[in-house]
Amino acid sequence: MKYVGVDIGGMSVKVGIVDEYGRILFKQSEPCYPDRHESQIVASIAALINDTINKFCTEKDEIGGIGIGCPGSVYDQEGIVRYSCNLNFRNTPLADLMSEMTGISNVRLSNDANCAALGETLFGAGEGAMNSVTVTLGTGVGTGIIVDGRLITGNKSAGAEGGHMIIEVDGRKCGCGNKGCYEMYASATALIAETRASIGRHPDSILAQVAEENGLDGKTAFEAKRRGCPFAKRVVNKYVKYVSTGIINLANIFYPEVVIIGGGISNEGDDLLRLVRRYVLRHVYGSGWYSPKMKVTLATLKNDAGIVGAAALCMPNCWKLDE
Amino acid sequence: MKYVGVDIGGMSVKVGIVDEYGRILFKQSEPCYPDRHESQIVASIAALINDTINKFCTEKDEIGGIGIGCPGSVYDQEGIVRYSCNLNFRNTPLADLMSEMTGISNVRLSNDANCAALGETLFGAGEGAMNSVTVTLGTGVGTGIIVDGRLITGNKSAGAEGGHMIIEVDGRKCGCGNKGCYEMYASATALIAETRASIGRHPDSILAQVAEENGLDGKTAFEAKRRGCPFAKRVVNKYVKYVSTGIINLANIFYPEVVIIGGGISNEGDDLLRLVRRYVLRHVYGSGWYSPKMKVTLATLKNDAGIVGAAALCMPNCWKLDE
Repeated sequence: MKYVGVDIGGMSVKVGIVDEYGRILFKQSEPCYPDRHESQIVASIAALINDTINKFCTEKDEIGGIGIGCPGSVYDQEGIVRYSCNLNFRNTPLADLMSEMTGISNVRLSNDANCAALGETLFGAGEGAMNSVTVTLGTGVGTGIIVDGRLITGNKSAGAEGGHMIIEVDGRKCGCGNKGCYEMYASATALIAETRASIGRHPDSILAQVAEENGLDGKTAFEAKRRGCPFAKRVVNKYVKYVSTGIINLANIFYPEVVIIGGGISNEGDDLLRLVRRYVLRHVYGSGWYSPKMKVTLATLKNDAGIVGAAALCMPNCWKLDE
Repeated sequence: MKYVGVDIGGMSVKVGIVDEYGRILFKQSEPCYPDRHESQIVASIAALINDTINKFCTEKDEIGGIGIGCPGSVYDQEGIVRYSCNLNFRNTPLADLMSEMTGISNVRLSNDANCAALGETLFGAGEGAMNSVTVTLGTGVGTGIIVDGRLITGNKSAGAEGGHMIIEVDGRKCGCGNKGCYEMYASATALIAETRASIGRHPDSILAQVAEENGLDGKTAFEAKRRGCPFAKRVVNKYVKYVSTGIINLANIFYPEVVIIGGGISNEGDDLLRLVRRYVLRHVYGSGWYSPKMKVTLATLKNDAGIVGAAALCMPNCWKLDE
């Protein structure tokens, strides 16, 4: 059986045919043109799905279902996109619409970050784990949590907002209205702000020089640290502590088989991973005592995670519901 | 069908016959004598179960299973008590032993706090909710999390340690080795310490007077606040903020239908509940926007929650596994 995975992004829509082992057999994409009307966007996504199915195989009954990952607030259980600011979606019954426009009845929908977490867990870094925590370090911090192969999304999918765990009571003000949210400390945005502040204090440092050469971004502190800058080392260590704190909180609750780190900052690879892994495994509850091994690793599927995870939404063999 | 619920405590073992509506039809208890050998404790628990079944009904095939809640580190999936300091249990295969000694094959085991959370959710304050977060404010802070009617306990049951979420990076030192854990701020122990500190600063306050009259405990600040003490009000408000912060963190992840507050401090009733509810509902992610209503309430089953929840461990109709 084959599955269709759809990854809707702000810039493009990607559609792939995925087999039950999470392999992408065929994929194509087109720009998203977010300024169009909702119905135009819906129609073009359906057309791309139909075209992809036609190009890949002759019969629709070879397709076990369509899974869709969409940014914004998505109500999984009902297949509705409540709100997606870049796409003019407002309470759009996307699953039903896609089902009508493709003739395939099994259509499932989730948030794009959740799909990526599911893809990584089942077919990427998680290597088939059924319990995982994925933390995505980008402009904000996204979290995706899988228990027994199922996404934890909360009542009416209003949960899974681990980026808004408070890790510092009365801490930095967050856009959500609270103070001290995890993403105010562990996002790329936060790392860049810390880097900028350190450069302000140490304008003659290697850190300042690296920023001057390459522009200031989430890579700056890591690169300057590699070149031996003590101030950069301090920025990185502080950042690692914050990233790890949120992971520890989630691990103490879920104690997953695997913690997967994704997002732009994960491109720092081992320079990030070794530090976070050490901090987390030292501080997770019960560490070194009775707790089982927990793997801490980097996302591997990268840009394909969304397509693969979306397809996995409708794979029956991915769900251990009978246990 | 009837179920046996066993609640093993530090002081006593309680055994009840529970029906599928969570009603206790018959119960009895006996002291636990924790200084005895493991095998003696096991034998006496089995004897109490057999006696309870005999007293209540004639046929063992009327019993759908035995559920056991045990303090300490419990490995649910294998039915093993890894460690329970008061009971001399070390890697004790309690489920298998009880099965042998009672002749009833379906025996399930979980942590006592988890059982209480399950009981409250299905048959108590949760009124049949399938998704809940229970926070128990006692000497420490316990958390019990239920998703789709199932306890979330983590890989090899090493999770569900929400009391050790870090809510203050580099905060108060916790016995677990970390700093800033939730229970260092939201436990009765923490409340008493704050109350004591405030009395030290304000020895002539109503707060000091209440402590003098009744002794200093978790009720002192609430009582002094009721009598109009501004310092007590400050202690209570600060405590409420901390309690709420941990609840917000769990709610942002799980977005449960209901949050249940139990433990000794929950005896303050509405004086606690109104403040926590207001704080939580104002600060939970997406509040007032698209998020569904979330109920914040007090535990109602009190001492019976353990028996009822333990029995629920083996009720097939409590598990929506087919969804």
